[in-house]
Amino acid sequence: MDKTQAASLISNVREVSPLVHNITNTVVTNFTANGLLAAGASPVMAYAHEEVADMAKIAGALVLNIGTLTNEVVEAMLLAGKAANEMEIPVILDPVGAGATPYRTATARRILKEIDVQYLRGNAAEIANIAGKKWAIKGVDASEGPRNRDSLASKAAMMFGCTVVVTGEIDTISDGSTTIHLSNGHPILTKVTGTGCLLSSLLGAFAAVEPDSLLAAYGALAFYGVASELAAEQTGNRPGSFQIELLNQLSLVTPTQIEENIR
Amino acid sequence: MDKTQAASLISNVREVSPLVHNITNTVVTNFTANGLLAAGASPVMAYAHEEVADMAKIAGALVLNIGTLTNEVVEAMLLAGKAANEMEIPVILDPVGAGATPYRTATARRILKEIDVQYLRGNAAEIANIAGKKWAIKGVDASEGPRNRDSLASKAAMMFGCTVVVTGEIDTISDGSTTIHLSNGHPILTKVTGTGCLLSSLLGAFAAVEPDSLLAAYGALAFYGVASELAAEQTGNRPGSFQIELLNQLSLVTPTQIEENIR
Amino acid sequence: MDKTQAASLISNVREVSPLVHNITNTVVTNFTANGLLAAGASPVMAYAHEEVADMAKIAGALVLNIGTLTNEVVEAMLLAGKAANEMEIPVILDPVGAGATPYRTATARRILKEIDVQYLRGNAAEIANIAGKKWAIKGVDASEGPRNRDSLASKAAMMFGCTVVVTGEIDTISDGSTTIHLSNGHPILTKVTGTGCLLSSLLGAFAAVEPDSLLAAYGALAFYGVASELAAEQTGNRPGSFQIELLNQLSLVTPTQIEENIR
Repeated sequence: MDKTQAASLISNVREVSPLVHNITNTVVTNFTANGLLAAGASPVMAYAHEEVADMAKIAGALVLNIGTLTNEVVEAMLLAGKAANEMEIPVILDPVGAGATPYRTATARRILKEIDVQYLRGNAAEIANIAGKKWAIKGVDASEGPRNRDSLASKAAMMFGCTVVVTGEIDTISDGSTTIHLSNGHPILTKVTGTGCLLSSLLGAFAAVEPDSLLAAYGALAFYGVASELAAEQTGNRPGSFQIELLNQLSLVTPTQIEENIR
Repeated sequence: MDKTQAASLISNVREVSPLVHNITNTVVTNFTANGLLAAGASPVMAYAHEEVADMAKIAGALVLNIGTLTNEVVEAMLLAGKAANEMEIPVILDPVGAGATPYRTATARRILKEIDVQYLRGNAAEIANIAGKKWAIKGVDASEGPRNRDSLASKAAMMFGCTVVVTGEIDTISDGSTTIHLSNGHPILTKVTGTGCLLSSLLGAFAAVEPDSLLAAYGALAFYGVASELAAEQTGNRPGSFQIELLNQLSLVTPTQIEENIR
Repeated sequence: MDKTQAASLISNVREVSPLVHNITNTVVTNFTANGLLAAGASPVMAYAHEEVADMAKIAGALVLNIGTLTNEVVEAMLLAGKAANEMEIPVILDPVGAGATPYRTATARRILKEIDVQYLRGNAAEIANIAGKKWAIKGVDASEGPRNRDSLASKAAMMFGCTVVVTGEIDTISDGSTTIHLSNGHPILTKVTGTGCLLSSLLGAFAAVEPDSLLAAYGALAFYGVASELAAEQTGNRPGSFQIELLNQLSLVTPTQIEENIR
């Protein structure tokens, strides 16, 4: 990946300010909206069956997050997803907690079956549980090492026909043929709720301005990872302060800072 | 408007601590509740059809915000609104995103038709889209200048029989016969989600303690605008920190500071 | 109570990182999740009838909070509660606003009747309204003094067969036979929404690692009270900053600090 090009994508987000339509869980709505605003995008949340298709059609990206599902919300996701597909608007799926209950796993699979999803973003356990293969389950264990992580990402990408982003200590992006890595970020991200959800929504903002799936994902992860490192430098081991400083850094971080710090 | 009188209204809010019943969107609930608490009011959120009328009847004001509608929530708004009307409790409508989808526009109009709303608070685009007139649509364009903004506010006030508050770089308040302006506030308010929603809920707190519609609105906007200026002085261009400091300033700002800074 | 033992419980929470399943109100989801994470627990929110039983069964504790009820959510609470009872997983009920509307009072009583609740946590007014007795109603008035508060807690504990935690300037814990007190905490807790709700969820985290009901409650209240005092020392009378610093202190406070400061 061209680091300069990837690092510059945030400038496009800030210039275009794409509308990102989120159908997301009730825990992270505020943090997601503020994170998108800080990055320069325009967030909207809409759930009513009467309006989700209309909203998705005017958006630059649609983000579906199954963190606090109900059947009514699932129907809204399918209505919005089909409208987005019609208009060729990128759809991002964040399968929060897939594997924790059969309902979540089944819902994530149903969305992947009925909607043409451009990005599937989750941790290794979530992706493996959706894929449901032995090779995938093995991949959950970080001790299995990078080979399994790569195999999980690329096989899931082929299985679902989308770009898969597996986040963790090392992030893996694969479209099934090309697999790339980043190792930006900070452990304190795991102590603040919704940091993964916000990354999925930011992926939507980047996908809205950059059609190349791998490049957009690489740019979004670099932006988010570097911003979180800069925030953690300021706040250390204080999760309350980190949540706030991360919003600040999403607004302040420059393409040059990103490029210099991509790992 | 008497600036001293308007600036002193926050003291009444802090003394009376009016109960403000919010039926609002899922993005801003926490920030709205914390903003009302910081200002000295008592927030409550209640949505169940079984209790919204009971809750509205014991409140000092009812705030309806259509940011994340569903039909179930619309029915709750109508039940609560009718109960508030019976008890002559002020109702505030925030038509978030009116115009973005036909459903939102229609819902805002339906509430205005079925409920006696005392305040309609939105940006120029939202108000114009609800009014649906050519003169109104023109008013959306800020380049059209103050004449169109005033015309939008006063005509919408006459059309809906309420006090209209159009917020933007300059805020316009009109009851159809008198139109007044303020220019407090700070651009960073647009980088934090729910700052408009919180203003609508604070308008409820002020309406609960001051029956004069123009005065209560003027007082609420001055209070909020000055608090946001004081917050921005501390935080500069950092949206995460601003969100927090705004809550601090809503708690700390004094009538004297408000009076000295009303513009 | 053994202060050393109570103060050390937070270490168990941090080591075990119990999964706390919250069915809670829409205002406090984010703050609750972040507070649990900061304390070292693992929060999950799940509401769908299709998955609440499955989720409750894998959790270390189930927290039911009636702050923004709908009938659909009540049914989810009953399904999850019965599953938790089957697996002998502790259930905590926070009857937010009981007494404010008949629906809330009736729902709190219904949950207490249909589910085996281990902890009932609320302020004196909420507990008294559920108990519905004259002696209880009197207890609401703080001026009635400590005798009434103790009587309220112990009689409610016997009536509902659970441990009752009545929080206020002085916190009272009773299992019907033993009644104990703490007076940690800070008045600014009442200026931030969801601080009571978060305490109930933390009670879940402590109950997940300590089967002795009185000890777990004493430990949770001491932990929370001391953390809030340390936070208030840093932030003074600024509610926005306090909300954030409380999250920091929940992460940072040590057993030694807790033990030295239990009052």
